[in-house]
Amino acid sequence: MKKVAIGIDIGGTNSAIGIVDEVGTVLTRGNIPTDRHSDINLYIDDLAAEIERIIASTDVELDIQGIGLGAPNGNYYNGTIEFAPNLRWKGVVELTKLLSERFNYPVIKLTNDANAAALGESIYGCAKGLKNYIMITLGTGLGSGVVINGDLVYGHDGFAGELGHVCVENGGRECGCGRLGCLETYCSATGLVRTAYELLGKSNKPSVLREVVNTEKLTSKLIYKYAIEGDALANECFRFTAEKLGKALADFTTFSSPEAFILFGGLANAGDLLIKPTKEYMEANMLEIFKNKVAIKPSELPGADAAVLGASSLVWKELSK
Amino acid sequence: MKKVAIGIDIGGTNSAIGIVDEVGTVLTRGNIPTDRHSDINLYIDDLAAEIERIIASTDVELDIQGIGLGAPNGNYYNGTIEFAPNLRWKGVVELTKLLSERFNYPVIKLTNDANAAALGESIYGCAKGLKNYIMITLGTGLGSGVVINGDLVYGHDGFAGELGHVCVENGGRECGCGRLGCLETYCSATGLVRTAYELLGKSNKPSVLREVVNTEKLTSKLIYKYAIEGDALANECFRFTAEKLGKALADFTTFSSPEAFILFGGLANAGDLLIKPTKEYMEANMLEIFKNKVAIKPSELPGADAAVLGASSLVWKELSK
Repeated sequence: MKKVAIGIDIGGTNSAIGIVDEVGTVLTRGNIPTDRHSDINLYIDDLAAEIERIIASTDVELDIQGIGLGAPNGNYYNGTIEFAPNLRWKGVVELTKLLSERFNYPVIKLTNDANAAALGESIYGCAKGLKNYIMITLGTGLGSGVVINGDLVYGHDGFAGELGHVCVENGGRECGCGRLGCLETYCSATGLVRTAYELLGKSNKPSVLREVVNTEKLTSKLIYKYAIEGDALANECFRFTAEKLGKALADFTTFSSPEAFILFGGLANAGDLLIKPTKEYMEANMLEIFKNKVAIKPSELPGADAAVLGASSLVWKELSK
Repeated sequence: MKKVAIGIDIGGTNSAIGIVDEVGTVLTRGNIPTDRHSDINLYIDDLAAEIERIIASTDVELDIQGIGLGAPNGNYYNGTIEFAPNLRWKGVVELTKLLSERFNYPVIKLTNDANAAALGESIYGCAKGLKNYIMITLGTGLGSGVVINGDLVYGHDGFAGELGHVCVENGGRECGCGRLGCLETYCSATGLVRTAYELLGKSNKPSVLREVVNTEKLTSKLIYKYAIEGDALANECFRFTAEKLGKALADFTTFSSPEAFILFGGLANAGDLLIKPTKEYMEANMLEIFKNKVAIKPSELPGADAAVLGASSLVWKELSK
């Protein structure tokens, strides 16, 4: 019998499922569309069937400890998804309650995806042994999970850790949340593209991006490609992003004085193009008492399985309490 | 025998001492200058003598549980004051160690003054029963103490909770810390005076402040007095301060999702002139998911004894662990 946890990452279009052992090996994987049904019960039917299918598909005898779920606006305390703008189910969805009616595991727990990733890092990744750190996920938006004294900060209502929506520029860029100047409008894959547009408008520097933008969709990946190839304007996009992010990380440090920030997601993979200058800007803007104390590390969760690993780690965390 | 804690608040010029019972009654008080000796041992001599004196001065039989100390740059983990810019002792001062050599109490603990105030509020004040709140002290500067799940956040190094030094205006006002745009350059007694100077320069509005500034030192108290009397420019000083503070509190909410902010200090006593508009600006800038969930309350610690009460509460907190 192998002790395992089921990790489920619920995204806007797709739900990924993995059966994960205690050291982070994904034994088997599954997948269903998230957006097929507007009725949550039909989605749960699909999800339960897929879980049963992948359990049956393995040769290993499984000792299933529970299910951990990561979902947008996932509330840890209530086990609910609440008013998630990018999901079809409106209002409050009692996700863990519905799953508990299908599965009789000791643990069925939910949180948001960035919180799940933060936990995953402490169990399988580069935050092993760290008690105070902040996970920053740089995807389409910017997500975060704050860990203090070894525990995730959920706040009084279960929704703490929305650092993508800290204002970093008064009257700055319009954010999807309806406010202006949120960190994620600058520091995210879409933020990087917006920076490129701004610089194309503002500067007269020659840049391959000027041609690219006329023939194909400008993406963070393309900006990365041309930055690596030496395009000055593409490089300036990363420098600007690093400046905004580094300054924000210096500000976040005043709150909980973490020993490390862990960066995850597409942009974090840009490595020295982003992490090195971010560290420099963070130190340059750091309050004296915190200087040279805080590391910035890239995530060590394997990209393709990261979300499922993060979700599964909720189970191990719960059992260790 | 009455169970009591000794609270000591070490300020730049003065150290206040109080013997406090479990419900926050200060049985007796003492006082010594902080800045008489550059040798910390001589200061400890004075402090120990004053403690002995006030113990001897009460008729009540005391069961002393310990000493709690609040001091600038006080480090909870190490019991040290580290590099405090406004104290004569340079470098790292091993305060609790030195006191432990003089007094044989079960608890001798130190933190910074804003953290002590936050704890005091939970034991004697308006945070009783609150598990997640943030204390904001509005004095010469802006101090803060962050409480999550009932515990103060000290961070990995013992210095967490320096929210006065979050940047709220890129390239903004010069701060004593050497950086630009820190929250405390706007939201503090000195910040209010700076706002008045800026408005006197910027606006042509008639204001009694224009005459006052030529004949006496402009203080936050004077600005408050004239605001209450209806002076438009003095009122605008408070509105501007509330805007900066309210926006910052909305940002802080994204971090730990507290159920309340507690405001303490001279400016907080301005009451509706500050707290009401701060609440309005906070809500106007709040991320949707946190709207109408977070209270702003004035401190309920009695002003004159607040610092000593805060310091003493460290002892009760430690004993309750």
